[in-house]
Amino acid sequence: MTEKIAVLGAGSWGTVLANLLTENGHQVSLWANKEKLVTEINQEHTNVHYLPTFKINPKVVATLSLATALQDVDLILFVVPTNAIREVAKKVVTVLNETGRKPLIMHASKGLEQGTHKRLSQVLSEEIPENERQALVVLSGPSHAEDVANRDLTSITAASVDLEAAKRVQQLFMNDYFRIYTNDDVIGVEMGAALKNVIAIGAGALHGLGYGDNTKAALITRGLAEISRLGVAFGAKPLTFIGLSGVGDLIVTCTSVHSRNWRAGNQLGQGQSLETILKNMGMVVEGVSTTKVAHELAQQKNIEMPITTAIYHVLYEQKNIRDEITCLMQREGKMEMD
Amino acid sequence: MTEKIAVLGAGSWGTVLANLLTENGHQVSLWANKEKLVTEINQEHTNVHYLPTFKINPKVVATLSLATALQDVDLILFVVPTNAIREVAKKVVTVLNETGRKPLIMHASKGLEQGTHKRLSQVLSEEIPENERQALVVLSGPSHAEDVANRDLTSITAASVDLEAAKRVQQLFMNDYFRIYTNDDVIGVEMGAALKNVIAIGAGALHGLGYGDNTKAALITRGLAEISRLGVAFGAKPLTFIGLSGVGDLIVTCTSVHSRNWRAGNQLGQGQSLETILKNMGMVVEGVSTTKVAHELAQQKNIEMPITTAIYHVLYEQKNIRDEITCLMQREGKMEMD
Repeated sequence: MTEKIAVLGAGSWGTVLANLLTENGHQVSLWANKEKLVTEINQEHTNVHYLPTFKINPKVVATLSLATALQDVDLILFVVPTNAIREVAKKVVTVLNETGRKPLIMHASKGLEQGTHKRLSQVLSEEIPENERQALVVLSGPSHAEDVANRDLTSITAASVDLEAAKRVQQLFMNDYFRIYTNDDVIGVEMGAALKNVIAIGAGALHGLGYGDNTKAALITRGLAEISRLGVAFGAKPLTFIGLSGVGDLIVTCTSVHSRNWRAGNQLGQGQSLETILKNMGMVVEGVSTTKVAHELAQQKNIEMPITTAIYHVLYEQKNIRDEITCLMQREGKMEMD
Repeated sequence: MTEKIAVLGAGSWGTVLANLLTENGHQVSLWANKEKLVTEINQEHTNVHYLPTFKINPKVVATLSLATALQDVDLILFVVPTNAIREVAKKVVTVLNETGRKPLIMHASKGLEQGTHKRLSQVLSEEIPENERQALVVLSGPSHAEDVANRDLTSITAASVDLEAAKRVQQLFMNDYFRIYTNDDVIGVEMGAALKNVIAIGAGALHGLGYGDNTKAALITRGLAEISRLGVAFGAKPLTFIGLSGVGDLIVTCTSVHSRNWRAGNQLGQGQSLETILKNMGMVVEGVSTTKVAHELAQQKNIEMPITTAIYHVLYEQKNIRDEITCLMQREGKMEMD
């Protein structure tokens, strides 16, 4: 069945997902907020800033107008940065009020809102009330956009409290290189998605400091333990953290040069300042703000998160990164499952 | 406190652990079964076949004689291949009978015994009865010998039903680059250690076939799920599989070129025959025989292990590796936690 889908956000992930849905036979509008990019996508069928070599299917239509993107829409996919999601949702609801459409809402963003500490499905459900939409579904998993663009076999999770909605989304995306598993633990999927970016900064930093595979594996493992602890304290199911949106995404983010968070950490480890790194990246590095939110949540629930704390010290208190790592490793011998 | 330790097996891991224990101030005998290697270690302080550039501490004394290695011994560390561990244990118990020593027994091998399907601590406790020894402790975790040789920060697990014994082993090994966590789930630690080598062959094969990071992360994640299912069916605690000996070791084995199992898989993916690969490797590739044991155990307990089954088909039934991978990915859409 052909569905009419609006993809909001034309970064690398939004662009690749819009392309994939189009190739699956759906009718896709891709909303972007820069006129130059809209023109490039519609005329050149490229998005060279985010995906230098990718050719976008010419059937993907980009637009600057949210009203155009949302015309006759069946499903909306938010793929905007965390700090923009509330503002975009407010605009979406205005359009939906006018048209009377009640689409299914999906998001594929990874972060936690600054200040409120809220998950992104919470932000969306606050701004788009239940009577203006169908269910909310969260997409997350190990999925570098660059690899999906290359049709690398990819498996991700579609999470919703409404499993029928998750199954509808599963059908929407599945093809011979993209595979969707459904899951009902929205909290666990969103917490894992956001928090893995903090650990990725740490893994990159280790690399920049010259450490090897053993150290990285230990950091990822202990990182998984601490993000699971925090997630479970907020109602996540423990098993979700060993799924695609947990350990799967953590592995790909911590071991792939495609990850902006890993790259930012790597440059920190090599001695560059955060300011310089963020200026040169030219894209959002979600893990930097997520580190602050995670640190505040851990304090609120009194949960020990030594890796997150170390990254927080480096990013926000100008502590020396090598001292922080040494300090992490020299904690007293422990039982593994305490 | 200085302890007298016999390390049995002078492969890469045995050599590096003997060196580390010596640097921690203990008195170490390293038992090897080749005269040429004993001479090389004692005279050149190298083991170039396994560790081409590593300089061994001159205080490490190698010997061909088990009786010499076990003289006045406080602890024995087995680091021999899986298929040799029972035979070596039989010889050890003969010496212990003569000397009356009752050492603590450790092992750092990763596999399951062919035919009997037994874990290595089961094999050791059958051959060295309880009245001839102290507790049994299993060492496992993300620890490529090459990285430990470079003093890369490494964290591993010491597992025992006797936690006091695990703590003694923890004290023995810990230093500023090597960190030990204790754990009481021996079954989970040994099952994870053995089974991760099967998944590593799969991860290497994906690389050899040209797949990217997303596919590898999905395989590792789904691999973790299936080895946890099998482990839990044999009495392991689920949480152990998200620890250092589970996901930690899985990550390092599946993402590091140091892993023989990964390298064997990579060459399979590139189209080489198993026979050629094993001949050229010149070292034991534990995952090949573990795949057979795991496949048999899964059938015995009627547990679905699609990745293990695919690897088994390739290794033992000459199935085409690309067909098997395609078949894996095209299974019907599922719930993640079923």
